[in-house]
Amino acid sequence: MKKAVILLSGGLDSTTLLAVAQSEGYDIHALSFNYGQRHKVELESAQRVAKYFDVTKHLVIDINLREIGGSALTAEIEVPKGREQITDNSTDREIPVSYVPARNAIFLSFALAWAETLEAADIFIGANAIDYSGYPDCRPEYIEAFEKMARLATRAGSEGKRTLRIQAPLLRCSKKEIIQKGMALGVDYGATHSCYDPGPGGMACGRCDACLLRLKGFAEAGIDDPLPYHGKG
Amino acid sequence: MKKAVILLSGGLDSTTLLAVAQSEGYDIHALSFNYGQRHKVELESAQRVAKYFDVTKHLVIDINLREIGGSALTAEIEVPKGREQITDNSTDREIPVSYVPARNAIFLSFALAWAETLEAADIFIGANAIDYSGYPDCRPEYIEAFEKMARLATRAGSEGKRTLRIQAPLLRCSKKEIIQKGMALGVDYGATHSCYDPGPGGMACGRCDACLLRLKGFAEAGIDDPLPYHGKG
Repeated sequence: MKKAVILLSGGLDSTTLLAVAQSEGYDIHALSFNYGQRHKVELESAQRVAKYFDVTKHLVIDINLREIGGSALTAEIEVPKGREQITDNSTDREIPVSYVPARNAIFLSFALAWAETLEAADIFIGANAIDYSGYPDCRPEYIEAFEKMARLATRAGSEGKRTLRIQAPLLRCSKKEIIQKGMALGVDYGATHSCYDPGPGGMACGRCDACLLRLKGFAEAGIDDPLPYHGKG
Repeated sequence: MKKAVILLSGGLDSTTLLAVAQSEGYDIHALSFNYGQRHKVELESAQRVAKYFDVTKHLVIDINLREIGGSALTAEIEVPKGREQITDNSTDREIPVSYVPARNAIFLSFALAWAETLEAADIFIGANAIDYSGYPDCRPEYIEAFEKMARLATRAGSEGKRTLRIQAPLLRCSKKEIIQKGMALGVDYGATHSCYDPGPGGMACGRCDACLLRLKGFAEAGIDDPLPYHGKG
């Protein structure tokens, strides 16, 4: 079985990603980060998802990105709410304050290290550049540049033993398509967590960018989101 | 003053690097990692060096690379000793077990995150591809690939605000040249630490790759290394 490292936040995209990779026959090594995120509750979802899919290993790495800050998710900056324009797919969107500086570079670099140790050639990331927040490190050109760097960075790449691949199969899917893909693979979206600014008990706000994009996806798919939202009626 | 993030291990190369960057007028933000390295004592050198050069900020980030392992520096793998061939500059060298999977990708990614938050355009790394251990992530093509990735990864790069540069001014210097450069800039090499496998009190072994390369540099420069070595005379 081909080993793969999967970046798993416990959100809708990365959970679907895990289901996709597993359906393709990969031996799943899931990687999550306790990085000082405001929505640390997502790690409970990551644990549930990893258990549900019976992954070979789930590693949670502690890194304190609050020491660096610079984001509404890792510093005392308010999470924007009610930005309905996030769902209109303009290509020209501004990078919002929920962007965490170099987060995907850091996460993918740890995945690269683990892949090297596991002798895995495949790293999966749930990056998406359609129904997304406009983060620079979710764009196709970014993923390609990381892959090039990764191939030069490692023993495997340097010695020509393995051709490392950064796989982002959801990159060009709409949120609706991601949900449909996941439903077909038996994903329980009630076990996932997307909200950036959860309330008491970890309940989703329903108004941050992550909630708005998620709700739009379910609405377009014609499916009820199984999660409760405290900001909704 | 232009801000710069400098990767500082407390070793000979990164200390010289810091002196070079400071002499060029950069406002120094030094970044070190407590990564589970066998030679954690190097962090004391990093603190001494940061203090000596009176840097604006010295940040030490905790990341436990022992959870990933795969190296003589982060797992129970013996550090090779007496590999005199390390000093013969063959271009065809094998990657030794002291190579830490994706370490420079991880370190540079954190530097990138910090640079983004500081609004700095310059990241300095003491990578060297002449008198070195043959690590893939010290080669010029690797540094270039990381720079390309970094420019796409970030808000600054994406919005065209800053052109991020990964500066590796020691990349093509011999160890002798690095030492001469540092001496001219007032570096006290007695405050640095290079050994991968220090003995009691942090004393250098004199026989690991890092010690052999360092000793070769001092010998070629015709200067006495101020450090004591427990494996020597």
